[in-house]
Amino acid sequence: MAPVAMAVRALLLLAAVGPAAALWPQPQLQRSPPAAARCPLPPARFRFAHAAGSAVGPGCAVLDEAFQRYRALIFAAARPADKLNISRDPLLLYADTVWGALRGLETFSQLVGRDENGMYYVNETEIVDFPRFPHRGLLLDTSRHYLPLKAILETLDVMAYNKLNVFHWHIVDDPSFPYESFTFPELSRQGAFNPMTHVYTASDVQTVIEYARLRGIRVIAEFDTPGHTLSWGPGAPGLLTLCYLGKDPSGTYGPINPIFNTTYQFVTSLFQEISSVFPDYFIHLGGDEVDFTCWKSNPEILAFMKKMGFGEDYTKLESFYIQRLLDIVSSLGKGYMVWQEVFDNGVKVKPDTIIHVWKNNVPYAEEMANVTKAGYRALLSAPWYLNRISYGQDWMAAYQVEPLKFKGSSKQKDLVIGGEACMWGEYVDVTNLTPRLWPRAGAVAERLWSNATVRNLQDAYVRLADFRCELLRRGVQAEPLFVGYCDHEFGGF
Amino acid sequence: MAPVAMAVRALLLLAAVGPAAALWPQPQLQRSPPAAARCPLPPARFRFAHAAGSAVGPGCAVLDEAFQRYRALIFAAARPADKLNISRDPLLLYADTVWGALRGLETFSQLVGRDENGMYYVNETEIVDFPRFPHRGLLLDTSRHYLPLKAILETLDVMAYNKLNVFHWHIVDDPSFPYESFTFPELSRQGAFNPMTHVYTASDVQTVIEYARLRGIRVIAEFDTPGHTLSWGPGAPGLLTLCYLGKDPSGTYGPINPIFNTTYQFVTSLFQEISSVFPDYFIHLGGDEVDFTCWKSNPEILAFMKKMGFGEDYTKLESFYIQRLLDIVSSLGKGYMVWQEVFDNGVKVKPDTIIHVWKNNVPYAEEMANVTKAGYRALLSAPWYLNRISYGQDWMAAYQVEPLKFKGSSKQKDLVIGGEACMWGEYVDVTNLTPRLWPRAGAVAERLWSNATVRNLQDAYVRLADFRCELLRRGVQAEPLFVGYCDHEFGGF
Repeated sequence: MAPVAMAVRALLLLAAVGPAAALWPQPQLQRSPPAAARCPLPPARFRFAHAAGSAVGPGCAVLDEAFQRYRALIFAAARPADKLNISRDPLLLYADTVWGALRGLETFSQLVGRDENGMYYVNETEIVDFPRFPHRGLLLDTSRHYLPLKAILETLDVMAYNKLNVFHWHIVDDPSFPYESFTFPELSRQGAFNPMTHVYTASDVQTVIEYARLRGIRVIAEFDTPGHTLSWGPGAPGLLTLCYLGKDPSGTYGPINPIFNTTYQFVTSLFQEISSVFPDYFIHLGGDEVDFTCWKSNPEILAFMKKMGFGEDYTKLESFYIQRLLDIVSSLGKGYMVWQEVFDNGVKVKPDTIIHVWKNNVPYAEEMANVTKAGYRALLSAPWYLNRISYGQDWMAAYQVEPLKFKGSSKQKDLVIGGEACMWGEYVDVTNLTPRLWPRAGAVAERLWSNATVRNLQDAYVRLADFRCELLRRGVQAEPLFVGYCDHEFGGF
Repeated sequence: MAPVAMAVRALLLLAAVGPAAALWPQPQLQRSPPAAARCPLPPARFRFAHAAGSAVGPGCAVLDEAFQRYRALIFAAARPADKLNISRDPLLLYADTVWGALRGLETFSQLVGRDENGMYYVNETEIVDFPRFPHRGLLLDTSRHYLPLKAILETLDVMAYNKLNVFHWHIVDDPSFPYESFTFPELSRQGAFNPMTHVYTASDVQTVIEYARLRGIRVIAEFDTPGHTLSWGPGAPGLLTLCYLGKDPSGTYGPINPIFNTTYQFVTSLFQEISSVFPDYFIHLGGDEVDFTCWKSNPEILAFMKKMGFGEDYTKLESFYIQRLLDIVSSLGKGYMVWQEVFDNGVKVKPDTIIHVWKNNVPYAEEMANVTKAGYRALLSAPWYLNRISYGQDWMAAYQVEPLKFKGSSKQKDLVIGGEACMWGEYVDVTNLTPRLWPRAGAVAERLWSNATVRNLQDAYVRLADFRCELLRRGVQAEPLFVGYCDHEFGGF
């Protein structure tokens, strides 16, 4: 019986064999004939295979492993195929890239239904699909609370179900430094919550990167400086600014000290390591929320400000640091993303820099307009801080965002590469991460994948509630949208 | 080595053998000598035993099973005692009742620490303790979402850790009727989300009651009428009011129809069953949020209103129903709790009725004053709807509530029997119940247990964060209060 033949050539086109299945995110085109045939899919006779003429065949780990994963997801505990039996009318999936084929497999898995007798089937459907934005990300914060490797891997699975393709790993910050650096092992030894249990070893990091790659997800690591670095201090003596109370050091520390050459030697070595560990072209360099209080208290910094002619404008000192950091990272052959302050402060950045718009104290649409007018690429997160929760169906607000709703030319709009849902960790750890993320982050995923015209809240509710039940069936602890139940509840009762 | 000897006689007094351990909820008195001795507790030589002269000995299931539970909680996987070895100075726990002894065991378990070498110990401490309010409840809603038995039992465990003693089981409501009635089996067959999987069988209910009893928790079932009964309709034809659109039935249903004798026959039979199934003296009869729209549309009800001389005052019709219901339940030898509308509408209730204050549109302190002025016992929930979430540390608002802060005599204050944290189920099911409940409901637990003077937020933060780590150690998926980590994280990494 009908295996899904697969040819990796053109755009996603899934010709499956009723009524339209509910899909999340909504494809660009989904069409079923008026009298669509229902095609049974007996597990024992089903297999995925590469179509004749496919540019990719067996041996491509991304697809080979995806075939196994999706077979298990679709048929749960059903018996696998034991022999090849290609029907005359295989279900076809065409894709330009293996990544497109991966997305198509996810769509196919959502098309498969199960009738009252337990028989699997797909209804005849034609789907043409492609993402609206190329950058569809999710930020996890592993510094405010440590997230175990397993939680990160599970999140990557659910990202793939949502067709999200960028894992923004906000790996270190003020509270803890869980990244085990081989160049500076003292950073995590002194800076992790627990240097034995609450760290990411080199092997953990490799596991995350490869697990993500096999699911079509890029990993962009963020090492935020010069602020948000308090946890770096104990393992890197002399790196942070010593704060003063009057004429004496107060015993507390501020942002990275930007006036010493040793600082830039340290930064160069660290980012050399980061550049080689994380294969993605982009590194997120942070640059947000630099508090000047400590810098202002330090006499050496005051002298430096004077010498450099910065007056009392500490954004100039901040820019001085960031500029050197960007040059260092550029020289390592990497591109970079930065939080919007770097742009707001007028730091000179490379033309291919991605400006990450996050602030909510001014309308983010204005910032999107400004960033793109200046010719930079913009990434939107301001309305998608999903760590912020409120009572009721707050996924709707995230869903109703329109990233391109700002004043600007079509050339400006083209500079919007997408967005990221952010799950900051002040109040989130492994105990509540999954129900807080899913299905709420699905709202962002559909906004970034589907056509701009896909905005109907009632329709989205029905599909998202259905998709959430599918997440439960796949073992994901996703919270309910509203009153009701699923055929397969979490925990399998 | 020192077993905890136990005499069930006086108030809780735990004389254990440093610095004061962080306890939740805070005991009425906790004292350690300036140079408190540290007493090691080697698991293999530790056992609980009844003290000579105790009114209760082996054979009391509540204590026998509690000894086993707390031994396992305290020592985790450590080897049990294999021989009796009573020291000359046993740790003593005195209690007036077995229930008090149970609370003392919980306190003792929180006193036990573990040093760097893995050795268990307690520091010399004297504790005198008793609850401020006798009714310390938690409401779970199993109608808007079904909660599997396991989730209810786990919640009972964590209630006991918090010294909460009343499980208010809001078992049925509009969306579903999961209670399997032996008198009216069609109610769940037609009214449950799924009559096979999403129901509480008689055995399930007995399991909940006994599990709760062994933990010192009463189970008060709520069968809310005449509103909140839409799910009763399909399994009880003729019970609900048929709504009209002009002259014709609209096909939709409203509250229970209060004008037919058959209604009261049904109600009598159902509450006969409920009275025998749930052994607690109290039943919660609901009585909240009765929508009059449907009653107003129904010509038979209009005729009845006229006949009874109710004019256009539908609260009189509501009261007519409630009065008969209360009389029925009284005749079954049961006491009842009702939501505040029953009192607000002037229904005549028995003197021992508990009025449950929940509304937030008017200051709840006024309602507490009014209820107690009328001589009724009051139970507070209005500020403790924990299903309502907001960003940040919202446990603090719950913690800062003072139930007795209303204008009234000391006699009135004496009528406040306590309160209940409520976790309504619109947005909560098994996927997010535990992290949403804990440790937030702990704030309510301490308010209801500890002295009124125990209100320091900083102190509470430290103890509650510590208690939450202990909950993780016990396997409870309790969410974090803020940035940080625990030695034993959830999932054991």
